[in-house]
Amino acid sequence: MDDIKIILSETEIPTHWYNVAADLPTPLPPPLGPDGQPIGPDALAAIFPEALIEQEMSQERWIPIPEPVRDIYRLWRPSPMFRARRLEQALATPARIFYKYEGGSPAGSHKPNTAVAQAYYNQQEGIRRLTTETGAGQWGSSIALAGAMFGLTVRVYMVRVSYQQKPFRRSMMETWGAEVFSSPSEMTQSGRDALARDPETPGSLGLAISEAVEDAASRADSHYALGSVLNHVVLHQTVIGLEARAQFKKIGLFPDVVIACCGGGSNFGGTAFPFLMDKAAGRAIRLVAVEPDSCPTLTKGRYCYDSGDTACLTPLMPMYTLGHNFMPPGIHAGGLRYHGDSPLVSHLYHQGLLEAVAVPQLATFKAGVLFAQTEGILPAPESNHAIRVAIDEALQCKESGEPKTILFTLSGHGHFDMAAYDRYFAGKLEDYSYPEAEIAASLAELRAV
Amino acid sequence: MDDIKIILSETEIPTHWYNVAADLPTPLPPPLGPDGQPIGPDALAAIFPEALIEQEMSQERWIPIPEPVRDIYRLWRPSPMFRARRLEQALATPARIFYKYEGGSPAGSHKPNTAVAQAYYNQQEGIRRLTTETGAGQWGSSIALAGAMFGLTVRVYMVRVSYQQKPFRRSMMETWGAEVFSSPSEMTQSGRDALARDPETPGSLGLAISEAVEDAASRADSHYALGSVLNHVVLHQTVIGLEARAQFKKIGLFPDVVIACCGGGSNFGGTAFPFLMDKAAGRAIRLVAVEPDSCPTLTKGRYCYDSGDTACLTPLMPMYTLGHNFMPPGIHAGGLRYHGDSPLVSHLYHQGLLEAVAVPQLATFKAGVLFAQTEGILPAPESNHAIRVAIDEALQCKESGEPKTILFTLSGHGHFDMAAYDRYFAGKLEDYSYPEAEIAASLAELRAV
Repeated sequence: MDDIKIILSETEIPTHWYNVAADLPTPLPPPLGPDGQPIGPDALAAIFPEALIEQEMSQERWIPIPEPVRDIYRLWRPSPMFRARRLEQALATPARIFYKYEGGSPAGSHKPNTAVAQAYYNQQEGIRRLTTETGAGQWGSSIALAGAMFGLTVRVYMVRVSYQQKPFRRSMMETWGAEVFSSPSEMTQSGRDALARDPETPGSLGLAISEAVEDAASRADSHYALGSVLNHVVLHQTVIGLEARAQFKKIGLFPDVVIACCGGGSNFGGTAFPFLMDKAAGRAIRLVAVEPDSCPTLTKGRYCYDSGDTACLTPLMPMYTLGHNFMPPGIHAGGLRYHGDSPLVSHLYHQGLLEAVAVPQLATFKAGVLFAQTEGILPAPESNHAIRVAIDEALQCKESGEPKTILFTLSGHGHFDMAAYDRYFAGKLEDYSYPEAEIAASLAELRAV
Repeated sequence: MDDIKIILSETEIPTHWYNVAADLPTPLPPPLGPDGQPIGPDALAAIFPEALIEQEMSQERWIPIPEPVRDIYRLWRPSPMFRARRLEQALATPARIFYKYEGGSPAGSHKPNTAVAQAYYNQQEGIRRLTTETGAGQWGSSIALAGAMFGLTVRVYMVRVSYQQKPFRRSMMETWGAEVFSSPSEMTQSGRDALARDPETPGSLGLAISEAVEDAASRADSHYALGSVLNHVVLHQTVIGLEARAQFKKIGLFPDVVIACCGGGSNFGGTAFPFLMDKAAGRAIRLVAVEPDSCPTLTKGRYCYDSGDTACLTPLMPMYTLGHNFMPPGIHAGGLRYHGDSPLVSHLYHQGLLEAVAVPQLATFKAGVLFAQTEGILPAPESNHAIRVAIDEALQCKESGEPKTILFTLSGHGHFDMAAYDRYFAGKLEDYSYPEAEIAASLAELRAV
């Protein structure tokens, strides 16, 4: 069968998400409250709907996708999987390179896979308003879109430096009807405190999370929505990997290696987790998370209990972290600048079921440009990280002569990221070195899992 | 059958383009040379490959699409057709509104449908380099993409005001490997003359065309590529309408009215022309071109022989025009700011087989925002013109109680146009009035068809 473009029919949009929690070798360590004790569902009820808290804690392997969510998914799902034949030829590799393209959603990335589900469950439980944070703007756009689809008001706290530098992302959210405020703002205690400490602060994702959580917790009609890290978020993203598995089945192939970029972990987990079922069944498959070497959470962080935000409003989560005060340099893959990582990804990585690799910024842009010139689709800087490692794997195949099958997820298009490409072509982009000794000292204070 | 999303299988990507020239009630008047005499194929040979000149003149109804072109089409084709149920509900209309979505291409619009074909035929005939002009950047991006796919060098003359205001579009073209220069440039006689007349000129599309044509004509390894207007360009875009017809057939419906925005005419012609076969067979169907009221070529222009560019390097073409010196105001639908129109669209409009309507800018943005908030996809400002008229038709159905079936083409996404939305939300966008008397005077000098 021709394998340039592998598409599924509408009826093959997954009917269930895959919950990897059902298949863990050892249970996931629980999140902890401020008192150091495991927290229960109640602790999350102020900011999340019951259905999502259930999913967060669930041990069920398959969780049904509600029909109204699948209906919205149909705007861009099933997403296509392509064979990158022109890239293979340019590399002169015997490897087969496939990519799963998530940039066809209205927001241009994989993020709506969970945003739509979160908006739906909140609306079902009578919530009228969602708050969230956004850095580069991908998540804020996605929740703005999802809110519009289900009639919810959305307020986005946008990291100040992005708010100033990315007015177009802000306009996009406003077009979908969301309110967007620069964070830190005067609207929350966390924001006012931060402004009092430093009126000129550029803001940070951790701080914007603090603001959004505080806002949601203070109003009965409001909940909070998170774009990555948590179990239910990664769960929703498993539509990516589930579809990819079905697509490989159609062409009678199976990947030797599966690659995705990893910030908070939902894109990587959503891509890789479904393939763990195959790995458990004895198939040889490598699952590789790619992170920037300037924010090397899995490759240089420590597996600890740490807070998800700067103000320590979230529970303590068992995860690889660089410390909640770590301020990553301003690299252009904004979606990969998070100090921590999904507890599920962290747990499975700690157990040796997943791999991770960190790559420098310039090399990722070089890979992205080669991909655009051979395959046509212009990738987001985050996705360039996955492309870099896919190319490196393919080049190794060229040396070894092995015709490996490589899959990576192209998590989004780069149409909002041309300023980054502009700086790359102008020679203004740099590789950053990570302050290893400094971080090691701050990590020593955290409690190990 | 469920009609939320109508998709075709891969094998249903059209195998032939539809050439409406075979079905005209009276023949298309020929283009004229500087001497006022009809020109033959030879006059075009300096800037176009033989295959495209043949298509330009062809009377064959069906022209085969080469397999290498269909292979690239598969990156985004067949494109989906959606039913806009949430928009229908918001309007409380009994009408059924469908839209054909062309924004899934790597460049974000319908333009690659012809760019890919043009690059292919040029490469087949040994051409190594293409030149073109671009205004807003959609066309330049598409030919840059297509050039990368077939290994051609691409040079783009970008209207100076866009070059300065839209650096991201420029970076996009550069990512695909194209050279981009601000027009007027020092590289051509047309450019040098324009700069001598006015060093501060903002440039214009007509002038950039002059530069690109002059450049291509001066080098044996180079040809010129045009993004709209010409017969072969509109021909390539008929994949849109052909697919839409097949999609309606799948659900057993047929549109009462087909709507598309119209600048140079390729999006509108590509959408509407295939339905002329049904009209000729006796089906009642209205085909409506939508233009901005600030550049009302069909609705207020004159059917004359006029030049396609400012420097009068192109042949004289039989078309509705506002005069080749008409400088449309800087509205945000850059793709609709052209003084002329496709000779095929003009001819069929003149014969009463097509309709046209002009709409003001603010009303189009209002329509686009409603569309984004109900349907999710954020449209390009050009596409907002089609949405405006589709909504107006649906509101008329509400009054009359008729459950009409409406189709419009959503020609591109608006991810590069957020500055325009930003200005709209800030109350900074204006409606422009068209200088009717002034234009009428200049049109009186042109030779009628």
